Order: sequence, then C-alpha cells, then structure tokens
Amino acid sequence: MNPQHVMYKHGGDMLADWENASSGMQSTDDGVYMPLQSATQWDAFCHVFYDGVTYNGHGPESVTSQGAVHNSVSMLADRVAGRGVLLDFPRFYGVDWLEPEDAIQDIDIDACARHQGVEIGEGDFVLVRTGHMLRRRGEDGGGWGDYAAGPAPGLGLSAADYLLPRKVAGVASDTWGLESVPSESLPEAKYGLHVIFLVNAGVLIGEIWDVEELAADCANDGVYEFFLAAQPLTVTGAVGSPINPIAIK
Amino acid sequence: MNPQHVMYKHGGDMLADWENASSGMQSTDDGVYMPLQSATQWDAFCHVFYDGVTYNGHGPESVTSQGAVHNSVSMLADRVAGRGVLLDFPRFYGVDWLEPEDAIQDIDIDACARHQGVEIGEGDFVLVRTGHMLRRRGEDGGGWGDYAAGPAPGLGLSAADYLLPRKVAGVASDTWGLESVPSESLPEAKYGLHVIFLVNAGVLIGEIWDVEELAADCANDGVYEFFLAAQPLTVTGAVGSPINPIAIK
Amino acid sequence: MNPQHVMYKHGGDMLADWENASSGMQSTDDGVYMPLQSATQWDAFCHVFYDGVTYNGHGPESVTSQGAVHNSVSMLADRVAGRGVLLDFPRFYGVDWLEPEDAIQDIDIDACARHQGVEIGEGDFVLVRTGHMLRRRGEDGGGWGDYAAGPAPGLGLSAADYLLPRKVAGVASDTWGLESVPSESLPEAKYGLHVIFLVNAGVLIGEIWDVEELAADCANDGVYEFFLAAQPLTVTGAVGSPINPIAIK
Amino acid sequence: MNPQHVMYKHGGDMLADWENASSGMQSTDDGVYMPLQSATQWDAFCHVFYDGVTYNGHGPESVTSQGAVHNSVSMLADRVAGRGVLLDFPRFYGVDWLEPEDAIQDIDIDACARHQGVEIGEGDFVLVRTGHMLRRRGEDGGGWGDYAAGPAPGLGLSAADYLLPRKVAGVASDTWGLESVPSESLPEAKYGLHVIFLVNAGVLIGEIWDVEELAADCANDGVYEFFLAAQPLTVTGAVGSPINPIAIK
Repeated sequence: MNPQHVMYKHGGDMLADWENASSGMQSTDDGVYMPLQSATQWDAFCHVFYDGVTYNGHGPESVTSQGAVHNSVSMLADRVAGRGVLLDFPRFYGVDWLEPEDAIQDIDIDACARHQGVEIGEGDFVLVRTGHMLRRRGEDGGGWGDYAAGPAPGLGLSAADYLLPRKVAGVASDTWGLESVPSESLPEAKYGLHVIFLVNAGVLIGEIWDVEELAADCANDGVYEFFLAAQPLTVTGAVGSPINPIAIK
Repeated sequence: MNPQHVMYKHGGDMLADWENASSGMQSTDDGVYMPLQSATQWDAFCHVFYDGVTYNGHGPESVTSQGAVHNSVSMLADRVAGRGVLLDFPRFYGVDWLEPEDAIQDIDIDACARHQGVEIGEGDFVLVRTGHMLRRRGEDGGGWGDYAAGPAPGLGLSAADYLLPRKVAGVASDTWGLESVPSESLPEAKYGLHVIFLVNAGVLIGEIWDVEELAADCANDGVYEFFLAAQPLTVTGAVGSPINPIAIK
Repeated sequence: MNPQHVMYKHGGDMLADWENASSGMQSTDDGVYMPLQSATQWDAFCHVFYDGVTYNGHGPESVTSQGAVHNSVSMLADRVAGRGVLLDFPRFYGVDWLEPEDAIQDIDIDACARHQGVEIGEGDFVLVRTGHMLRRRGEDGGGWGDYAAGPAPGLGLSAADYLLPRKVAGVASDTWGLESVPSESLPEAKYGLHVIFLVNAGVLIGEIWDVEELAADCANDGVYEFFLAAQPLTVTGAVGSPINPIAIK
Repeated sequence: MNPQHVMYKHGGDMLADWENASSGMQSTDDGVYMPLQSATQWDAFCHVFYDGVTYNGHGPESVTSQGAVHNSVSMLADRVAGRGVLLDFPRFYGVDWLEPEDAIQDIDIDACARHQGVEIGEGDFVLVRTGHMLRRRGEDGGGWGDYAAGPAPGLGLSAADYLLPRKVAGVASDTWGLESVPSESLPEAKYGLHVIFLVNAGVLIGEIWDVEELAADCANDGVYEFFLAAQPLTVTGAVGSPINPIAIK
C-alpha cells in the first residue's frame, strides 16, 4: 500500500463558502496514512528476526501491538546523522544502471571506493547507487509496477565482509530492498543482508533513497563524502520510519 | 486526533505460529495514521489564507483534494537545514516557564538574544523556548488535555517587527501554536503571526518542538547557535509535515 | 478514537476547477478510518478471552494480525437478523433514564417483559433501553465526554440467569458496554457479562445502539417485538463491526 | 485502495505476556481504513454531479470536506430495506456469465422478468446478476486485477427506460460499476446511468454485490422476490457506504 495523503480541509472548502471565507483568516489541514515501510525509509533493527530473535537477542515478546520495546527506530531518533559516503556504481562501471540480479560484492565496493577516492570508516552512512530508480523513472524503465518487491540490483552477501569490519552505521540504496534480488546465492540466504545487518550487526538499512541529485553533484566535484542528516521520525516503538535524508557538503 | 501507530505484524504473530516462526527469518511491519498538523511539525505556507490568498497571492484553487500546487512544505524538502538559534526565555527571566498568555515581544527577543550573546540573522531558524512543554510534562503541569489549542505563552505580534527585518527562515516553539494564546491584542488579530509569517513573509512556523535537551546544553556551554536539520517529509502537496529536528554543535 | 470521515474529492474541488467541472459528469469520493469497536456495533465472540480462551475454547493463536480465524463477527454475516424485543426500563420504571451503576437484574427483566406483554425466546435479539444515550444528548446530560468507558447503567450479572436459558442470540443496549458500570458486584466480576455472553455462551453483545425512536414507537403501539436486521459488515476476521440496525414492524 | 483491516491488539499480544494474560479477562481490538466506494456498497446521490448539480439541483457547495449536506447516503439510513427482485441474466440466457461490454437493455429486463415470473414495482430494489463476480473468482476468470474499473458486463442505457417508470428505489449488480463498460453508446454517454439514476432520478446504485448464493436459491425455488435489508452505515454526510445486504425469503 502506498502512502495516502488526505486533505481534511482545503481551498475548495473556502470556495464553497466564499462569502465568509474570502475575508479574514482561513486554514487548511491534511493527514497521511502510511505503512512505515513505504517510501524513503529506514528499517529498524526490530524489523527482522532470525531464529526467533532480533538484534541483541530480544525475543518476539519485544515487539507487540504496542510497538517495539527494544530496537525501535525511534530509539535512534537523535543519532542518525553524520558522515555519508556515496558509492556510484553505474558511473564507476560506465553504465546507465545496474541490471536486476546484479550483485555488488566486497571487491566491487573496494574498487569503486578507491576509484572515487573515498574511504569508508566507522560510523559512516554508505549510500549505494544502482541507478534502478532512475531507470524506473524513465520512459522505458518499466514503470513502478514491481519496483517494490520485484527483481533489483543491489548488494551481494560479501558486501558485509567489506562493510562490517569498517563499522558503518547504516547502508542505504535506491532500490526497495538494498540487496540483489533474486539473491545471487542459495535460497536459504534470501534477504541474508537483512539478517546480517539488522539482526547480527545492528546496522541500519535504508531503502528507496533517491540519490540521483547527490550523485550528479558528486560526479561534478569529485567529492563523494558529505554530512548526512537522515533522522527518523520519533514514532515510539516504530519498526521503521519514512525519512527525508539530506546531504550537505 | 493524535497520530495512531498501528502494527501490521509483530512478535506476537510469531508466537502464535511459533513452530514455523522460531526458525529462519521473520519480519515485522507497522504503519502510522496521522494529521500532518499533529506532533512536532512545520506549518507550510499554504496552511493559512488571508483575504482569500496564501503566500505570493495564490488563491484557494491552489489547494485542493490533490494537495497544494503552491506553497506546499514538500517544495522546501531540500532546504530546511541551516543555522539555528535558541532563545531560552524561562532561563533569561529566571523562571521555570512562562505563563499562558505571556507574550514575548520584540524587546524581549532583543534582550534575550543580547543576554545570550547570540545574533539572529538571515536564513536562521529561531527556536523559542517558553517552558510550556516542560510544565505540561510535570506532575503539576495540568497534563496534555488542552496543550493543543489551549492557552499558552508565546510570541506577541511585535515579535515580527524584530524577526522579519532579519530575514529569518523559520520560527518554532515548544507550544502548539507559536503565538501567545489568547492573543494579547485585538480579537481580530487572532493568530496574527500565522498570517504575517506564513501569508505575508513566507517564514515557516514550527510547533510542538521539544527543546528541553537543547536548552540544557546551551545553558551549559553558553552557545546558543547550532546547525539545525529539520527537513520535512516529501509528501507531495502537503500542508505540513511531522519532523524530527536535530541540532548539531 | 472516533471514526474519521475523510473526503477524498468533493464539490470544493469542482469549484477550484469550475471551468472544466461545471459541465459534464463529476464524482465525489470519501473514506472512513475507524476502530471497529466505535459507534453502534456488535462485539464478536473473539473480542474477549477468559483464562486464555475465547468461545468454544480457541486459544490466542486464533486471533492474530491477520484477524480471527475463529469467532469473527464476519462469520455471522448472513445470520444476524431475526426477532427483536425491546425492553424499555425507563418507561417501565416511570423515569427519564436509569442512573449510572443502576444494575438491571433478572427480576427486572422478567417484570419489564411481563409489563410490556412480550416474551423473550430462542434466537431473539434483546434490546435494552436505559435512557443513557438520551440523557447524554440532552443539555444537562453531561455531554459525551465519558460516555465511552465511563459510569453507566446496564445489565447486572443475574441478567444472564434470565436470558441464557431462553437462548437469546444477542443482547444490545444504548450504553457503551451493555453492563452496569462500575460493576455492582465483586471487582473480579468486572465485565462479567462480556465473559459470560461472549466466551461462555456465544451471545453477541451490541453497544451504543440508539433505540429512542424505536422505543417511542413501541410505547405508542404497545408492541415490543419486531423484525430486526443488524447484519455486520463482512470484514474478514474482524473482532467487531459497525452496524446500522433497523427494526421493522 | 482496498479496505485495510488492522488489528490494534490480538492474541499474539497475550502470548507475548502470557504469564499475565493467561488468566482472567483479555480483549482484542481492531479497526478498518477504507474508501467508502470500495467493497459491496451503495453510491449516494451526491456521488455524481452533472453540469454542476447533483440530485434535486444542489450545487458543489453541498459537498465539502465536512461531507454532504444534501444527498448523503446517511440520510437514507433508515429506509433502505424493502422488496428485492433478482434478475439472473446468465441463467436466463443459459450461459455461465455475460461478457464484458454486454449491455442489458430494456427488452432484456422485460424478457428476463417475464421468464422468471416476477414483476418489478414501486420502491423495489433490483439486483442484476451478470455472473462477472463468479467468473473472476474462478481459476480462469482473470483474477481481480481490473475487476474494479475494468471492462464489465452491465446495464445499458435503455435499462432506465424500463426501470424508472416503475419507480424502483435502487439498482445493484455484481460488477464494480453497474453499467456495461465500456459503454455501448456514444462516449459522451459514459457512465450515463450513474447520471440518470443518481442525479436525475434519485435511484440508489449498488456495486460489487455478491448475489451468487441468492441466485442459486432463487433458481432452486423459482421465487425471485424477497425482503432485502441493505441499510447503509450512518456515517454523517458520506458519499457512499459499505453494506452487507441480506435477502430474506
């Protein structure tokens, strides 16, 4: 389900009562009804369980109808800002975009970072550009039909081998699920990076991030690092949060 | 109406199917249903009309059930970050909090800023602490019952005389409506600052901002300026946005 | 939370685009966001568990985020219509309304039914008028503030002794919870009729029913029985349903 | 958007706190978020405007963000029950279902009613079976993808010539829009029956009605008339209402 923007009161209501509404002050109001896993977002650690536990070994009783008492994204409300690094794989490989099922492995990350002249370090937020969002926006990109939950390029399992030792804080991409879909590896490793990042390592996963404008800027000035503010909303106990990440150079 | 956090799927569902859910990967999901004028927020310029027009003279037809085609907060999605300045009036006046209907005027702002050793300038986001939120959190503060829409301390009309010439970008406070309520002035000036800031001047209004932790920090180090990231969500055409503003020193 | 009626598109939108909208066909649309336990409703059997089980011994795993697989109100979608009987206690006792905490016991039901010349039998839907809704509508009735969840007149525990042997299908009232609140009996019997009716007996509970017009009609013609159509919506797995019951004589 | 059923509290929450939840009373709760024009429904007269007016000449100012002050379905809350008549066209024509774009005209209605031995009269609710819903439920029926808003069999324009002189109260069908789609006639007559029934005649339109069980019963006993209770919810000012119509013989 996509977010639903609903107007509670708007200019049309003024027109319907113009005699009174055309003078003095009037206000408009609206609301939104949305899954917290739709749109540009962070997945909280409590989004995924493996063998019955989420990050730090909390069991299912830690996430109920009242929300999560552990590992909610709201618990990180004041600390999701810091150094960001963009890895622009299409530009690195000289293509418009990666293809669905293309898996970005540890050696790809290493090569791309070197090529861009940027190092990934502790506490960084790593933004992975695949070009998949750009492609879907284009006339021949196939539209948004299966953008969510469909085949997509993305990180392969070994990306964790590169990123985790560097103690990154979060990893985000321009696809719906960060990972290469379908998985390049064994079926039982499906969404393996979700398990590794969220359950084992406590690394945030960002999805559906539009990095096109940022990527153009980085390509232009050759600087692939920046300050990133991507703080989640403080919905107490939430499993995820819509965000509007901004990069500042 | 307060925001409603709803869990679509959670740990309790795993427990209800534990035989299958106790091994391998499981996920949880949730959603939120909320007015965009609830919680910590920005009011977009299109939130208020005066004499039939909103900022830059756009008429009521600019805000329909499809959202706003002018003056939506989503149009500022990438630019609501910059220098922030906190004005801590309770500390300045040596009180725990201001009283409802207390109106902070131009001379108060001037005096407080001088006392704090901070200057307000072009493009700044000015955060006004009244202590009202702190009071309501306390045991004797009266609870949250009429926190929204009830009497509150806040800016008086002449605050605009001080702030507008300095070309501030936004003004926010720890009350529901920024302004002194009930208005200190003539009834026809009710919510006058909403009209002046939003309709005439194009200055964002922030409401229900929790500035307690920031204020304690500023009192501690004597530095009342900081980098503020308070970017709205990109709900196309929205009249306002929930936000999680963060201050970085 | 009260039901929220939201307009997706309305006449004001036509006025905002009058040049195009004033000729040919236009349509309007709306939506509702509501708890299924708000407004005039049925409680499904799965609404209440006692000692870990709901009606017919189903455990908690029978009601998950996917809804109820047993005892949902949607499973009764085609059979909640039949003979209805109104018991008008205020008229019987010669008062405008019963007082909060007034408990209608088995002997009261017996006496009222005899007085009205009506018998309660198998499969009947019994509507209990306390006058509480009428009172709250009046100028001195205290408003709706604590109508939901506050003190109210209603059935006492022994009402079950009268109604269950007669094998009624459902019992409804003009209060928020059917039962006398606070309970007239031991604290551990709080909401005892909810347990007896829903968990033990499989008798539907109807709440917030407006029976004023029906009661006036019955008083007028002296006939306290009628055909009742009170079918729930078919929300699969729902714990309750808003309804619009109609009585036909 | 389909209706969203959300569980606020369920058995899984009990399992997550089983020590406390396994004894005494526990309750579950849920909610629904739905367009009022989804699922089995009535279209209110105010759902459609033609040349700027809805039924009885009310202009666009009669339907605002506050809902409709004229022609809302809630204004008919107590009177949408009465004689129902089923017209089973697939059985009449000896087919499983009608084909998309098949248009049922006045002569078809006349022939089918005669064949079934039923007369349509004043105040009747006429249920039109096309078999389209049955087809979509079947394995080869194409699924529900474009059931809403896609091609469908249904009434042709001349159906009004037959039904209106008989002063029917409502007409419903097992398709999303009652009418033959695409329209058999001139493009400017698109949704012409919506205009004729709702705007001109004040006849309710029912959509997405499941009449399969009823049709089987009528075929079995040869009786195509019944009592129909199809009362809308009392959402004040609503443009439509989800319903659970029941037929009683």
